[in-house]
Amino acid sequence: MSIDFTHMNKIIDFHPQDMDIVVQPAVSWMDLNEDIKASGLFFPVDPGPSVCAVSKMTTISLWPILLIGRENLYRQKSGVCGTNAVRYGTMKDWVINLTVVLADGTVIKTKRRPRKSSAGYNLNYLFVGSEGTLGVVTEITLKLAVIPQETSVAVVTFPSIRAAAAAASDIMRSGVPVAAMEIMDEVQMMVVNKAGGTGKIWKEVPTLFFKFSGTKAGVFDNIGTVKKIAKAHQAGEFEFARTPEEQKILWSARKESLWSMLSLRKTGQEVWSTDVAVPLSRLADIIEISKKEMDDLGVFASILGHIGDGNFHESIMYDKSNPEEVKRIEKCVHDMVDRALEMEGTCTGEHGIGLGKKDYLVKELGLETLSVMKKIKLALDPLWLMNPGKIMDLSAHDRS
Amino acid sequence: MSIDFTHMNKIIDFHPQDMDIVVQPAVSWMDLNEDIKASGLFFPVDPGPSVCAVSKMTTISLWPILLIGRENLYRQKSGVCGTNAVRYGTMKDWVINLTVVLADGTVIKTKRRPRKSSAGYNLNYLFVGSEGTLGVVTEITLKLAVIPQETSVAVVTFPSIRAAAAAASDIMRSGVPVAAMEIMDEVQMMVVNKAGGTGKIWKEVPTLFFKFSGTKAGVFDNIGTVKKIAKAHQAGEFEFARTPEEQKILWSARKESLWSMLSLRKTGQEVWSTDVAVPLSRLADIIEISKKEMDDLGVFASILGHIGDGNFHESIMYDKSNPEEVKRIEKCVHDMVDRALEMEGTCTGEHGIGLGKKDYLVKELGLETLSVMKKIKLALDPLWLMNPGKIMDLSAHDRS
Repeated sequence: MSIDFTHMNKIIDFHPQDMDIVVQPAVSWMDLNEDIKASGLFFPVDPGPSVCAVSKMTTISLWPILLIGRENLYRQKSGVCGTNAVRYGTMKDWVINLTVVLADGTVIKTKRRPRKSSAGYNLNYLFVGSEGTLGVVTEITLKLAVIPQETSVAVVTFPSIRAAAAAASDIMRSGVPVAAMEIMDEVQMMVVNKAGGTGKIWKEVPTLFFKFSGTKAGVFDNIGTVKKIAKAHQAGEFEFARTPEEQKILWSARKESLWSMLSLRKTGQEVWSTDVAVPLSRLADIIEISKKEMDDLGVFASILGHIGDGNFHESIMYDKSNPEEVKRIEKCVHDMVDRALEMEGTCTGEHGIGLGKKDYLVKELGLETLSVMKKIKLALDPLWLMNPGKIMDLSAHDRS
Repeated sequence: MSIDFTHMNKIIDFHPQDMDIVVQPAVSWMDLNEDIKASGLFFPVDPGPSVCAVSKMTTISLWPILLIGRENLYRQKSGVCGTNAVRYGTMKDWVINLTVVLADGTVIKTKRRPRKSSAGYNLNYLFVGSEGTLGVVTEITLKLAVIPQETSVAVVTFPSIRAAAAAASDIMRSGVPVAAMEIMDEVQMMVVNKAGGTGKIWKEVPTLFFKFSGTKAGVFDNIGTVKKIAKAHQAGEFEFARTPEEQKILWSARKESLWSMLSLRKTGQEVWSTDVAVPLSRLADIIEISKKEMDDLGVFASILGHIGDGNFHESIMYDKSNPEEVKRIEKCVHDMVDRALEMEGTCTGEHGIGLGKKDYLVKELGLETLSVMKKIKLALDPLWLMNPGKIMDLSAHDRS
């Protein structure tokens, strides 16, 4: 799969004094941050994999149109949040306005350029995460944040996923403003070692990855609290990085996790990547049960989670030419989603519904809520032209 | 005006481990925080005046229905944010799900209970701030935050509004995570003194009010940075409060600002309260111009701003039985809104459109964007039953 990001990837206007920037949707967030570094500002939503363009984070505005019909489209992300979400929120929180081309060709701008507004319905938040089904985003004004004075990265291991999850939960409840808190299970750590992309050998046990940011004293304080909580949950020694170079190496296991899994594919193998989210207190339960089930079925799967948001991802290796195996994987994913819903969670924290989770959406929210979404879709796109087939399907009944 | 808050004001379910709470929409945010204090959690959206119920902060779901036809309804707030918004965001950021009764009597729940979700369109953010025009909210699940270890309140005076605004702008650009940063002009300070509700005599000059929160060391650091920046803008001495009692007194001028203005009304007088928001760098300009214009017209008006969001409020005293004066005030407000729009701002940062700003909404966003809002409204409420007359009007053309 190769996507042309040489179009629609420009910075249109930068307003450092207003702490915002106007960009085209295919701008790369890493290039963006590099370009504006000297201003002391940055766009803090870190989606993880470095190819991620801003458009992909809003409504995948361009992507679906480029990709319609691709079998793996259901895996494209919508309301991308990534590793910094626990501190900085998700994409929607950083959008000031959107320029959108609607199904009938009308071009609208959702807001002018104030950071705060109560003027009419909040269209920003309707288009962000709508997976390209309501319009094509052609321009985005993004809020920016100030680059923190001090950042630190730390990694610590735990004897079990439950211990790591319990520590993370206590850290959330302590109010320490971690900039990122990510969990990776022993399989994921082994995958990173096997792929060998990080220049470091990792312990193959459940591991928490932290980013801290703020003032020097604030970061020092926060690290102290986190260490104490982790120790109470049988954590190993903390490994810290201070210099940007050290931080890059220490964070690399997190950054390379998906690529590592992909690089281990043999001919005919695919990686099924899926995510769910549950209320914070249920995260350890659902991870533990899901892992056990995968093991029982002999499925090779790794787990990685944005644990501060109750959101985790499963990457499952499978042979797509083996219908038995595909069926087994589908059952695993199906059961995990069902479990998330039973726990009052959601079938997707970040990835979106796409093609693959339409039935779960009905189960999660019910026909009445889905009907409201359909009414909005029909009101803006009566001919169902925009990225059809995604999120929900239209029945004859819906048109009546 | 008296509103019955004895109904729909219950806490339904509290999940401290998930850091969320399920409430009815008329629950008072102060009672709510008092009730859950022992858990170490709080609901951080502080709307200022203490009567504010949660419903008023979401869609004013119950209020418009109680109040339809009241002449001052245009002043009811919608996307209430208040003093803590610069740190904690606004109401919409704290809603996990809403139970909403739609125009046709259908009851929907927008989400289950995960803190993060990408499942379908974001209906939470559509209903929050829709001013009761899309449905009646009957239940809300709110995210909660951890009560910070340390809080501090500080007050500092400036020789001019421009100096205060410039200091505030530099503080934002420094990245100091102030929990609140509020500006009050010399008129507002005089009003507070005259009303005498705070048990303290204030200097009648432009004043910034700060709240700091975090760890002890973090708060200490942040105060240091803010002091240095303020000094560079000719600030007076900082006045600090540490104990909860001292903090209450020092914050009281901010808390009592609206009530102070209201208490100065003589027979026949009313207070017109309005707000706009502009990109950060334009705030000093618009405040300065608006103040000068008020002075030139001999209008008695005070200014108060959530300066970190580029949002400010004007409270104008006027004699409602004097049509000349009403006309003069209307011109002032009209010009201020026009100026905000010229600066790429919005006609309302928090208060909402209501009855009074419908024309400005058209001017601000244009007919095409408004048409999208109307299509959504018509899709969910084809008979235009829910809080009709608010935000926008329906023309024969819109139905075609």
